[in-house]
Amino acid sequence: MKIGIIGLGLMGGSLALSLKKLPFIQEIVGSDHNKEHQEQALELSLVKKIVEFEEIKKCDLIILAVPVDGIISIINQLTDIPENTTVIDFGSTKEKIVSSIPAQIRKNVVAAHPMTGTEFFGPYAAIEELYTNSVVVLCDLEDSGAHQKEVAIKLFEALRMNISYMHAHEHDRHTAFISHMPHAISYSLANTVIKQENRDDILTLAAGGFRSMSRLAKSSPAMWEDVFKQNKDNVLEAIELFEKELQNFKKHIKDENWKELHKDMQDANTLYNIFS
Amino acid sequence: MKIGIIGLGLMGGSLALSLKKLPFIQEIVGSDHNKEHQEQALELSLVKKIVEFEEIKKCDLIILAVPVDGIISIINQLTDIPENTTVIDFGSTKEKIVSSIPAQIRKNVVAAHPMTGTEFFGPYAAIEELYTNSVVVLCDLEDSGAHQKEVAIKLFEALRMNISYMHAHEHDRHTAFISHMPHAISYSLANTVIKQENRDDILTLAAGGFRSMSRLAKSSPAMWEDVFKQNKDNVLEAIELFEKELQNFKKHIKDENWKELHKDMQDANTLYNIFS
Repeated sequence: MKIGIIGLGLMGGSLALSLKKLPFIQEIVGSDHNKEHQEQALELSLVKKIVEFEEIKKCDLIILAVPVDGIISIINQLTDIPENTTVIDFGSTKEKIVSSIPAQIRKNVVAAHPMTGTEFFGPYAAIEELYTNSVVVLCDLEDSGAHQKEVAIKLFEALRMNISYMHAHEHDRHTAFISHMPHAISYSLANTVIKQENRDDILTLAAGGFRSMSRLAKSSPAMWEDVFKQNKDNVLEAIELFEKELQNFKKHIKDENWKELHKDMQDANTLYNIFS
Repeated sequence: MKIGIIGLGLMGGSLALSLKKLPFIQEIVGSDHNKEHQEQALELSLVKKIVEFEEIKKCDLIILAVPVDGIISIINQLTDIPENTTVIDFGSTKEKIVSSIPAQIRKNVVAAHPMTGTEFFGPYAAIEELYTNSVVVLCDLEDSGAHQKEVAIKLFEALRMNISYMHAHEHDRHTAFISHMPHAISYSLANTVIKQENRDDILTLAAGGFRSMSRLAKSSPAMWEDVFKQNKDNVLEAIELFEKELQNFKKHIKDENWKELHKDMQDANTLYNIFS
């Protein structure tokens, strides 16, 4: 099987590193609109060669690992691919992507969201074990072709990922709460602290707590701009519900309502029962 | 030197574990108002014996590793300790503590804030290397006695900690932004998600991002209630500045002002220049 990866950053680059070890993959080629990323990807041997879009189209499996706006644009340039080609997109939002797939290639496409990543980006962020043991959500799989489903499942199983199934609409709402809104918070927290505190005080006083709360604030603006764009309504709703929760928390402090504050913290502690 | 540790949870218990290895410590005794914690501390051999408050008072060095309200109450029961006794409090807020130390024992006390911890609490959370290589902030050190300063510095150096000096007032403002407000956010984020999402979806979709953003929400309500109480004004100010920042972020999404949103995220990315 010949694989073409579009986008050789953290997600595409890490995928290339793990695919190399799979016996059923004969060749991995890549493309990236960023010249510097192309050079870095070759330097790091993520892919054997960088090819033109026309050659990517001839691959058996095409992976789209670019920001979500880019995914929509590329899918719309793939209308002439052969019937047996599989296209898997790695977008973090899914509803706008699946609804924008041209009808004549709907069966070719499998909409996937690998629930993994780091705050780093670009080819140098690529790490081999990024996908191992993490979850991949496949959306609206009933609209993909039988062959394409098979290829996608074979791929994710070979990467030792846990496959979960969801409707795109449902996926976007859940991820707004569990992933996208927390990113908005982390970016805003980082900016609040950067404006109020100087570098030395941050370095002295930032223990594990602030580091873990601000880690996501280092994530790629290009990727996240598209996520907020494509999942706008869900994200706004999630931020507003969070704002209400925080206002409540603040009100308990302001009113010195320690009993209620304590109860809120105990409620939050129940996350223990979900994961520790 | 004989050491008495009041409070045998994460902070006191971890301290006991590291002190055991120091040559200049002859005996470590402990006390904890929680019966269960007393038993666990003995079971885990954190301390050799649990003693009454009157015996703690006879130690050369007394460590107060309890929530901040408890620290204030205990310090006020220590007015009859010998001149050479050193009392070090480990409270996460400092201004109310230093201002509540009775004048006759002001020189005995060193106000310290070790900038380390985990989200776990109680004796079972104790880990030996908790203090190694982390920062300890000593506040208003000019008000402590020469002997007490020496004991405190000797102790923290033996624990291989990096000592930083600050005024209590300054400390409380900085930590409101860098530690206390981020905790309020994490508790509120956890509660927002727990109310909106079910256990299975959280487990499936929570990758590293949500896990790191919600980790602090598992912290001890008893400890954090006191922090919010004692640092109320600074914490409220920090939450309000964060709320404004998030409102701005939300407004950019609502208004589809992607250029400004992108710029905000790039600003947040500068945290890279502080720590990676």
